[in-house]
Amino acid sequence: MTELVYEQPLNEKIRSYLRLEYLDKQLQSNLNHDHQHRCFYPLFSLCELSERCDYRNEVLKDIERHLLQLSKWQELDHVDHQQIDLYINALTQAREPLQKPDRFGYQLKQDRFISALRQRFGMPGACCNFDLPQLHYWLSKPWEEKQHDYRTWIAHFEPLLTPITLLLQLTRSTAHYDNAVAHAGFYQGDSAQALALVRVKVDASHGCYPTISGHKNRFAIHFVQFEQQRHSDRSIDFLLATCA
Amino acid sequence: MTELVYEQPLNEKIRSYLRLEYLDKQLQSNLNHDHQHRCFYPLFSLCELSERCDYRNEVLKDIERHLLQLSKWQELDHVDHQQIDLYINALTQAREPLQKPDRFGYQLKQDRFISALRQRFGMPGACCNFDLPQLHYWLSKPWEEKQHDYRTWIAHFEPLLTPITLLLQLTRSTAHYDNAVAHAGFYQGDSAQALALVRVKVDASHGCYPTISGHKNRFAIHFVQFEQQRHSDRSIDFLLATCA
Repeated sequence: MTELVYEQPLNEKIRSYLRLEYLDKQLQSNLNHDHQHRCFYPLFSLCELSERCDYRNEVLKDIERHLLQLSKWQELDHVDHQQIDLYINALTQAREPLQKPDRFGYQLKQDRFISALRQRFGMPGACCNFDLPQLHYWLSKPWEEKQHDYRTWIAHFEPLLTPITLLLQLTRSTAHYDNAVAHAGFYQGDSAQALALVRVKVDASHGCYPTISGHKNRFAIHFVQFEQQRHSDRSIDFLLATCA
Repeated sequence: MTELVYEQPLNEKIRSYLRLEYLDKQLQSNLNHDHQHRCFYPLFSLCELSERCDYRNEVLKDIERHLLQLSKWQELDHVDHQQIDLYINALTQAREPLQKPDRFGYQLKQDRFISALRQRFGMPGACCNFDLPQLHYWLSKPWEEKQHDYRTWIAHFEPLLTPITLLLQLTRSTAHYDNAVAHAGFYQGDSAQALALVRVKVDASHGCYPTISGHKNRFAIHFVQFEQQRHSDRSIDFLLATCA
């Protein structure tokens, strides 16, 4: 039994957040295990995304919105005041480093080692020994030194990634999972309230994965048989959470 | 003491071979260890390189050239006949699968799973759960199954990669390492015979890496201090092999 969670963002903001969260998880996993030169892929993806788009204002606005909501909840009786306090403190703390005007990761642009690598990482097979002798040298360093270097590089993105983790936690906490059935592999849902995120939990033993589409008030889930790579016509039990 | 080997190709053919060999090593390392979605990077690089360039004729010509050379050596007295036989057999065997007219890896173009992944792997952070639910499903498979799948995919490139390993072995075997010194971090070499490959073995404890440039009759080596990212002005002992 391997339960897999599939998530589909229903707006652009959550779409960006999920993408950044995914890269954050990659960074962390590269810190825990030596994936060699592969550790640079998510780092350079983050560099590129944060050059294309300055997420700062969106994240700041979102923090304010959530702080307002949380302080309203704080006045209610039946809520977990301690939990709400935790979020208020964490969000307030995360707001601070976002105030600086610099783009995230701009320091890495000035790093000659990182810049040289980044230029080549997009080309197929272009991280050879002769393309990047400095990479060959760096990879031979003891793992602790590489971890230290890597921690320094990824720290530049922390002011962005920390609040995003919190904001996604809050979004996910707006709904719990309910049982659902996709008849003939298909499920359709709607909501009067604008939705931000659809989450599907399904056991891998079904041999299929969901493809989810939709926008804020309506969504559809198609289950696809992995081996046949075509729509499943079976009834599939799954768990569904629709987060606002 | 970590001795590092740096190689510089001095012609386009060896440059391609080294690039393909590098990717081959990546494939093998992804077969030995579960690097998750990262295993697809070298696979897609190989797809792209072999679409851009059909290495077949070049490799076939090179095999013929080496077979001719080896059979000439076979007539000499002071050579290792057994070793030469081994190479002749291996090259003759490797020639066979190269005769088929299909481009390497064309089968992967017909694989819907691989094609869907390949489309997204070049984009920054675009292998999210919601971009590629099928990848999320595949990654949850037991490691043995993933290894099996991966072995099937990379097997399509074996007819190309096997002879290249042999040809590079032969090229590297044309020279042994000699002691050399880079005075003030610089070394220049030349050769009446056309060179194919320069190999530099240097201890990592020197804290520097070589940048090598040149063409068939002449080459230069500059040692660069890694931490300062600038030319070293120290005398550096290293080992040098110039392969024809």
